[in-house]
Formats: sequence, structure tokens, C-alpha cells
Amino acid sequence: MNNFEFYNPTRIVFGKGQIKAIDELVPQSARVLILFGGQSARKHGTLDEVTAALGQRHIETFGGIEANPGYSTLMQAVELIHDKNLDFLLAVGGGSVIDGTKFVAAAVECEGDPWQEILVKGAKDIRSALPFGSVLTLPATGSEMNYNSVITRYETREKLSFRSELVFPRFSILDPTKSFTLPPKQLANGVVDAFVHIVEQYLTYPAEGRLQDRFSEGLMQTLIEIGPALLNNPTDYDLQANFMWTSSLAMNGLIGAGVPEDWATHWIGHEITALHGLDHAQTLAIVLPSVMQEQRAAKRDKLLQYADRVWHINEADEERRIDLAITKTRDFFEQMGVKTRLSDYQIGAEAIPLVVEQLEKHGLTRLGEREDIDLGKSRKILQASL
Amino acid sequence: MNNFEFYNPTRIVFGKGQIKAIDELVPQSARVLILFGGQSARKHGTLDEVTAALGQRHIETFGGIEANPGYSTLMQAVELIHDKNLDFLLAVGGGSVIDGTKFVAAAVECEGDPWQEILVKGAKDIRSALPFGSVLTLPATGSEMNYNSVITRYETREKLSFRSELVFPRFSILDPTKSFTLPPKQLANGVVDAFVHIVEQYLTYPAEGRLQDRFSEGLMQTLIEIGPALLNNPTDYDLQANFMWTSSLAMNGLIGAGVPEDWATHWIGHEITALHGLDHAQTLAIVLPSVMQEQRAAKRDKLLQYADRVWHINEADEERRIDLAITKTRDFFEQMGVKTRLSDYQIGAEAIPLVVEQLEKHGLTRLGEREDIDLGKSRKILQASL
Repeated sequence: MNNFEFYNPTRIVFGKGQIKAIDELVPQSARVLILFGGQSARKHGTLDEVTAALGQRHIETFGGIEANPGYSTLMQAVELIHDKNLDFLLAVGGGSVIDGTKFVAAAVECEGDPWQEILVKGAKDIRSALPFGSVLTLPATGSEMNYNSVITRYETREKLSFRSELVFPRFSILDPTKSFTLPPKQLANGVVDAFVHIVEQYLTYPAEGRLQDRFSEGLMQTLIEIGPALLNNPTDYDLQANFMWTSSLAMNGLIGAGVPEDWATHWIGHEITALHGLDHAQTLAIVLPSVMQEQRAAKRDKLLQYADRVWHINEADEERRIDLAITKTRDFFEQMGVKTRLSDYQIGAEAIPLVVEQLEKHGLTRLGEREDIDLGKSRKILQASL
Repeated sequence: MNNFEFYNPTRIVFGKGQIKAIDELVPQSARVLILFGGQSARKHGTLDEVTAALGQRHIETFGGIEANPGYSTLMQAVELIHDKNLDFLLAVGGGSVIDGTKFVAAAVECEGDPWQEILVKGAKDIRSALPFGSVLTLPATGSEMNYNSVITRYETREKLSFRSELVFPRFSILDPTKSFTLPPKQLANGVVDAFVHIVEQYLTYPAEGRLQDRFSEGLMQTLIEIGPALLNNPTDYDLQANFMWTSSLAMNGLIGAGVPEDWATHWIGHEITALHGLDHAQTLAIVLPSVMQEQRAAKRDKLLQYADRVWHINEADEERRIDLAITKTRDFFEQMGVKTRLSDYQIGAEAIPLVVEQLEKHGLTRLGEREDIDLGKSRKILQASL
């Protein structure tokens, strides 16, 4: 097992009816900014519930945070906070709103240019941030229980991330009934996103992380069990509860602590989203099976373990066993309604050179847990994804 | 899944050589009290390492904390802290020292009588505690990553517990090499203790806690895989690392969040320790198989799941499958060198009435996840343990 540090101070308040706990979680004297995305938080009554729970506290609201939260938009929130002298943030939404709120929390107290200090320099000199909580309505990214954030600057087509212990949510309320009204596509994307988060931290090489392996396998098995059922029964409380808690545990630092991590699928996927506008989860569903195939020698031991423990594949021949594991992974994504081929999205071989070029431009020339995925391998992965 | 709250702000710094991180984790201006138990922390050099890492900070030491940390002893530490104006505690040891340090941290700032306020009233009115960290040398109880503490008052033969978010360790250093020198008996007890902690949170009734189940099963499987090997290879780094991390994750609140819990084995075991002086783990190894047997109807679904997923028992007949799961549990403890019958410790049937009497005296008349273990059932459990 590798040396590691694990720290996660976010308070999770989980279950139906928990939004009212906000009254105890937010200081009585707080002047609150509620941040949200589109109109669904309002339409489905979540904003009203949150407002009611805040009682007599001073409240301002800020809507319109994009699916890929935008720098310019968020800087308007920063201005509002300064104007109205607000001191506590409450994100109501999914990973985009929570990621955006993390940036706002850091930007409000940032001396200097927030883009430069927080995103370009990676927040290493940031000394304080506004406290904030979240009310999760769309499980997938795990942002409600980690300190990562990805922000897009649309004007310059830049997408940068930062992480800082100052932007752990103070609390996150996970009420599974808040996901009952999600469209099937968002649910499906969420399941695929969470699944690939786990794979990135698991499918590398054996490192004597027995717990990390078992926990990852348990999370993947759960998604496999509940994913398709969830699409058919989005108002089943226990299915949504297991999905919500799985997506948080998949990205809260626990399963990756002490073991190698990959993330090649994410990096390649990001470029496809940037160039072609595909959903994040769609790109993951396209790229992951090809990464497994291209890296089958380097990942051999873990692929066999994955075949055995996650898919329970009973097949004596090891190569065939790996083939089946890859096929089952692809089939699972397809079963969730997320297509797994570039051609399903009308993207052909002619698009590959530009994706590779962008990887090079962004310095992503040595991906994977062994940094052995060079541009040539990335090209092969993309070709296998056609 | 049941509603739950999960909060655990302890920073885990895991791996070989991590004691030097103390220099970053303890404030530079801190006046530190190092608390420890017997002489092993000194003999094996851990105290020297800790002292070196603290550098120029003012340091006092306080040794002699008992295996069941004693109120009178700990109050001497409180006095020393006041006398020397100390403001940061560092526990070096296992669960006893860390539990004791939690009490000291709360008692130092307690207005009123610490026994009354912290242990009798359960710390509900406690408003502050000294900050502290821990250096774990004996994995088992999970105290390094939770907010529980059990304290004994030898004068009055009372043993009480408290929990408070104020006594989460600020950090815990988990260096698996620090367990290399543990005597086999302590290692064996630690494995059994951690295993039963998991069972208490797992073997109840199905509650749609799919992650909690999978995580618990992963932790138990890991202990089964590594336990016997660890006895033969106590200086195997990866075995110790997996054991250390398992014992923390078994009792940090994660696997019990959102699911029912039992703890009957612990309550009955405590009385046996109090009356007969057996090690905590010994009592658990004695009582658990009988609880499984006596509660096999109430725990039927989870016993079958346990047989299948933890022990991989291939047996068509369900009653036989449960029998085998119980037998394998007992065999595992015996394999670890921990005897599982009262008679192995020269305790006969004549001892049972007093144990039951003590349970009654302590109000433990409705134990278990359904509170259906009355004194009659506890008696049956003890009789089955002879």
C-alpha cells in the first residue's frame, strides 16, 4: 500500500426530509447566497424548501450557473456577495453548481485576479474561503463530498480545475427524493460518470490496497445492480439512496487513498467534450472500453480481478475472460442508454487528429497510472472507439 | 436505507516514515503533552521519534495509562496540563491511550466534575476540548478515527463511555511499521476485535444499505485473508498496513451509517471482562458465535448473505449454510489463537447467573438491533458459550 493522507471534513446529512436540518447547519446570523443552475430547483420546490429552512436569515439568490460552470457567470455572483455583504453560500444542484460555488467561495476572499490565483496557479496561495454547504439534487460527480472544482472560461475556451481544503463543503444534504424528477438521460449519465470514477481509481495494477479494491468493487457492483432498475423506477427511494451515496463515496478520496490512479479516460474524454460538445459521461462511455483494450497488458492483473469479482465471469481462458469483462462494461453503458462509439455521435476518423493535437497542446502526453499512454497510444484508443 | 449523518474530520496520515509529519500537524507554538501507556512506546523508539519530530516545542510526557484507561490516572494528566500550561495533546499508543486522551482533552476544559459531566451525563453539555492528535501503535479499536471513548473508574468498578464531536483526533498517524513489534496475542486480539466491530454493524437485517454491506464484507474478507498470515509474518508491511487501515475503517462511522446495528456481543462481553478479567477480544470471540446461533431466525437473511459473500459457502440447504457460517466464524477466531468457549478460560455454568444479574443491574435488558435479546436470551447465549 502506498503512503497517503486522507482528510474529509464534510458533514453528510442523508435522507428524506433532511433539508430542514439547514436551520441547524447554517449560523443564525448568516447572510446567505443560494446558488443554483437552471429552473428545475425552483420548479420542483427545492428552492422553496431551502428558503423555508433558512427562516429569518437574510437570503439572496443567484441562478443560471451553466452545466460547465462559467467563470464570467460566477464572477457575477462574487460581485453580488460583495455588494450585499453576504457571508455564507448554499449550493442547490449537482456537480456544476457545487463546483461553481467552490470557486465563488475562494474568489470572494481572493486578493489578486481569481482566474490567475485560483485556476492557473491552482489555489496554492489561497488562504481563506467563504464557508458553504450544498443540497444535492443530481448525483454523479461527488463534488458534494470533495474539494475539487472544474471551471470553464468560455471566452478563451479554457477549462481548468483546482483543489483546496478550504473548499470542502461544510455540509452536504443528500435527500434521495430530490433526484426523483431527474430526466432519464441525467440519471444514466450520472451512473456512468460515477462508475468510471471508480474504474479510474481501481483498474491500474495491484498495490496491496485490499480495502480500496474491495470498496471499489462494492461500489461498482452496486451501480451494476441498481443502474438499469433506476432508469425504470426513478421514484424508488432505496435505488436513489444507494445511487446517491455511491456517487459520493466514489469520489470522496477514500477508494483512491494509498493506490495508483489512472484518469486517462477522463483526460481524453475532456478533449472530446471540448471539441464536440458531448456530455462528459458519453465521452467516458466511449473511451473507457478502448483504454481497457489498449492497456490490457499493463492492466492485466486488475482486469482479471475485475472480471472475477465485479462481473463474476466464469471462464478458464484468461484472455477470453478479459474480453468478456470489457464487453460487459460496454454493454452496461449501452444498457443505461449511453452509446459507446464515436460513430454513434456522428464523429468519424477525421476527428481524431485534432483530439490528439489538443492533448498535446495541453501537455497530456503521458497519461495513465504508469504514464505510458503517449500520443500514439491515445490515437489508438480513439481509433478503437470509432 | 435509514436516514443518517456522517461526519469524520480526522486527518489520517498513513504509511512508513509519517511520524515526521507531526512537525506540520502540531502548531509551532504548541506546548505539548505526550500521553502513552506502558514502556513499549519508549522501548521501541516511537517516543523518541515523536519527540524528535516535535523539535523545539515545549514537551511534557505522561505514561502509565492502563489497558482500560483509568479515571484517577487520567485526572493526574489533567493536573499536569494545568500546572504546566499545556495546550496540545499527543496520544502515542492504541485504543486505551487514545480513549484516555479524549477524556483528558474534554476534562481539562470542563467546568464542574469531569466524571459527572463527561461520563455520567455523556458530555452533552461539554463546549470545548483541547486539540489532540494520535500516533497509532496497536490497531484494533478504531479510536484513532472516531469520537468514542470508554473510561474505567477502578475505585467504584464503573466503566462508562462518552462520545463528542469535540474529541475527534485532529490527526492520526498510522505507520504500519509501528505494529511490527506487537506480541502475537495483541495482534490476534486486534484482528478479532476489528472483525466483531464489523459484524455488529452488519449482521442485523437487510436495510437496503448496499454499500454499507459491501464495505463490511470487504473489511471482513480482508481480515480473514490477512489475519492468520499476520500472526506468522508480523513484520510484513503490507499485511500490517491492510490490518491497520481495516481496523480504522471498521469503526469510523462509515459502515454503520444508515443501517441498523446490534452490539449485543459487546454488551455481554463487557460484563464477562468486568467479572472475570478476560481480554475484550476474548469475550467477543466467546459470545459472538452464540449470538449468531441464538438469533439465527431474526438474522436469517443477513446470515445467509454473510455465508455467501464473506465465506463463499456453497451449500444448498439454508440451515446447513448458516451452521457452516457460524462454524467458520468460530474457526477463524480459534485459528487466530483466541479461544471461543467460556470453559477454555475456566469459567463454568455457575458463573452465568452473575453475568445476567450484572446485565440487569446495568439496564441491558433489551439488546440487539431489534431489542429482542432479553435477560432470558442473554442467559441462553451464555449457556451456549460454555
